[in-house]
Amino acid sequence: MEKQNRSGTAGKVIRCKGSAVCRNPGEPLVIEEIMVDPPKAWEIRIKILCTSLCHSDVTFWKISIGPFALFPRIFGHEAVGVVESVGEHVEEFQEGDMVVPVFRPNCRECRDCKSQKGNGCSIFGDKLVAEMPRDGTSRFKGMNGETLHHFLSVSSFSEYTVVDVVHVVKISSEFPAEKACLLSCGVSSGTSLMLMWMTGIGAAWKVADIEEGSTVAIFGLGAVGLAVAEGARLRGASKIIGVDLNQEKFEIGKKFGVSEFINPATCGEKKVIKEITDGGVDYSFECIGLASLMEEAFNSSRANWGKTVILGVEMHNTPLAINTYFLLRGRTVTGCFFGGLKAKSDIPILAQKYLHKEINLDGFITHEVNFQDINKAFDLLLEGKSLRCIIWMD
Amino acid sequence: MEKQNRSGTAGKVIRCKGSAVCRNPGEPLVIEEIMVDPPKAWEIRIKILCTSLCHSDVTFWKISIGPFALFPRIFGHEAVGVVESVGEHVEEFQEGDMVVPVFRPNCRECRDCKSQKGNGCSIFGDKLVAEMPRDGTSRFKGMNGETLHHFLSVSSFSEYTVVDVVHVVKISSEFPAEKACLLSCGVSSGTSLMLMWMTGIGAAWKVADIEEGSTVAIFGLGAVGLAVAEGARLRGASKIIGVDLNQEKFEIGKKFGVSEFINPATCGEKKVIKEITDGGVDYSFECIGLASLMEEAFNSSRANWGKTVILGVEMHNTPLAINTYFLLRGRTVTGCFFGGLKAKSDIPILAQKYLHKEINLDGFITHEVNFQDINKAFDLLLEGKSLRCIIWMD
Repeated sequence: MEKQNRSGTAGKVIRCKGSAVCRNPGEPLVIEEIMVDPPKAWEIRIKILCTSLCHSDVTFWKISIGPFALFPRIFGHEAVGVVESVGEHVEEFQEGDMVVPVFRPNCRECRDCKSQKGNGCSIFGDKLVAEMPRDGTSRFKGMNGETLHHFLSVSSFSEYTVVDVVHVVKISSEFPAEKACLLSCGVSSGTSLMLMWMTGIGAAWKVADIEEGSTVAIFGLGAVGLAVAEGARLRGASKIIGVDLNQEKFEIGKKFGVSEFINPATCGEKKVIKEITDGGVDYSFECIGLASLMEEAFNSSRANWGKTVILGVEMHNTPLAINTYFLLRGRTVTGCFFGGLKAKSDIPILAQKYLHKEINLDGFITHEVNFQDINKAFDLLLEGKSLRCIIWMD
Repeated sequence: MEKQNRSGTAGKVIRCKGSAVCRNPGEPLVIEEIMVDPPKAWEIRIKILCTSLCHSDVTFWKISIGPFALFPRIFGHEAVGVVESVGEHVEEFQEGDMVVPVFRPNCRECRDCKSQKGNGCSIFGDKLVAEMPRDGTSRFKGMNGETLHHFLSVSSFSEYTVVDVVHVVKISSEFPAEKACLLSCGVSSGTSLMLMWMTGIGAAWKVADIEEGSTVAIFGLGAVGLAVAEGARLRGASKIIGVDLNQEKFEIGKKFGVSEFINPATCGEKKVIKEITDGGVDYSFECIGLASLMEEAFNSSRANWGKTVILGVEMHNTPLAINTYFLLRGRTVTGCFFGGLKAKSDIPILAQKYLHKEINLDGFITHEVNFQDINKAFDLLLEGKSLRCIIWMD
């Protein structure tokens, strides 16, 4: 029997006035009335408070052919919300909990989730799932009964959404909603960036494990790259070198600890990095998603202990070509989704650090819009004007 | 002023009856009388007790064109000997010390040698040096006055050799000479194997840091691959999978802990490894030096924490092509020369472990010959009959 909730909506379809539906690739989203099914077993229905737009939303929004081109669809995967109702077997959440949905599953039962290493989940996998992960069906319908597709198991551009428990993390309710929102991003797949603060900070702390006094090079100063810089700054890196084609990124980067800047359009970054670090950096990060840039990042790391962390998703399927002699000289290359963080255990820890002002998130929020103006968030990102634009539900 | 030694040879040229000179690429070595100069500053002259043949000797012995084709030349880089005399400024060694020359320099003064990480030396570099590292000249002459080239800063196929102090490690004199000999090898470069026991054991312990219960795949069961197996066995690996085209290697491998065997000629190793390890191994090692096999090793590692260690030297300069999505799923690839070991600090530790019977070295010695029969050691290695053949000075 369904547990009833305070608003009397548990177990019932919610007619949801505000959902931003993408009907065709690359077209502006349309705010529509839609129907959101009640959560099935191991699912929860969430009332979204705020959401934000990430490059990976834009990447999939543009895809017009192939298996990833699913329309009509509800995008959005960075958000914070409040639990409206829960499905059968859900013990971890209850109505009223403040939660952050995450694209990366964390079942806590499989060998991978139980391990201290990595952040993959061998039961729920790491594919870019569209519909609900357990039964492959959608919880969204248009008013004419048509199915609306999910996105990255989150679909946060909607007043209400349904998410599997393995894709949700509970956070302290004292956490300010407009900041918590930023905690939920993760992978991009874009032509370019894998995005977000946690991806960057997790990569700097958990994957690279940067020590005090280290030298760091960051290829691509988007949101993820800046978050890497912030993570490196907090660890006491002695030099944080930003590499970006956009000269303006240096000024933004300084706020996050970037101490030198290289524009590869005007000089060979590899040589310059080797010069200013006496042979190469201790840690390099690729935050764009281009195999050629990954190679540059690898080659800019020093022999003996240089470590390169790949964060960008290569959408052209170009392999990374590694000079094996450089490897034999003691270099390492690795990569991660979502900064190597395990959602359920690491997100609450980082959220606390933010609450205690140990981490600077504020600089990432460059714009805020109302949900009705969601297409403006797309424009700002496409024009390169925003790092993150918070989209407030009404 | 020169310190005099017991035999009265200090400071004088030694006419040395037994040196195996390679006059032309690929030709049998010729035992000749040669002249060995006294050591210059920071050098020591060593009387070799025994030496052994490694694939990298054979590789360079075959090279007939280009900058590495240096003849006449004295090969050999795995050896143990006794200090005959020392040059100026040498404090670390004295006459009578039992020493192991090593191709990999360890100056203990530079940033890299002082670091806990890696094993490169930023002053003496990691190039495959021929002549003496400080002045680039040879200490060997033929009886007609012609210059004989050194090899890998060691040249142990000679009754006497001169080696820079950064290429020598002192070991306990209680160590049996025929085993100590094996402690000195390092890199191969061959078309195939990078060799030796320390390279393998260092890679397993120091670079991979294999934990109890781990699964391991070793591509290439030559001496280095078997040493990796031995290192993995001692760490308590639950599965040690050997991959080799030579089926006979399974029987040899069992002595060193190899628990399953895959012959890629009869089955696809990647699929088999994924099946028997539930998704891939925790650690994979490439001990041959083929980019395509490195890729197989990488692909056979599991997502989330799989680590691939490259030990083989790619002589074709083919880059390793890495699937970047596999990297993003949390895999790591790294490499090392000489097992990531710092010669001066790590060799004595491993030597002690052998003395205390914590390590099995004996299985590696498959043959022994007298120095006069050194060409037989080449035959045995070329025919794939020996792992290591000890060559005894008379």
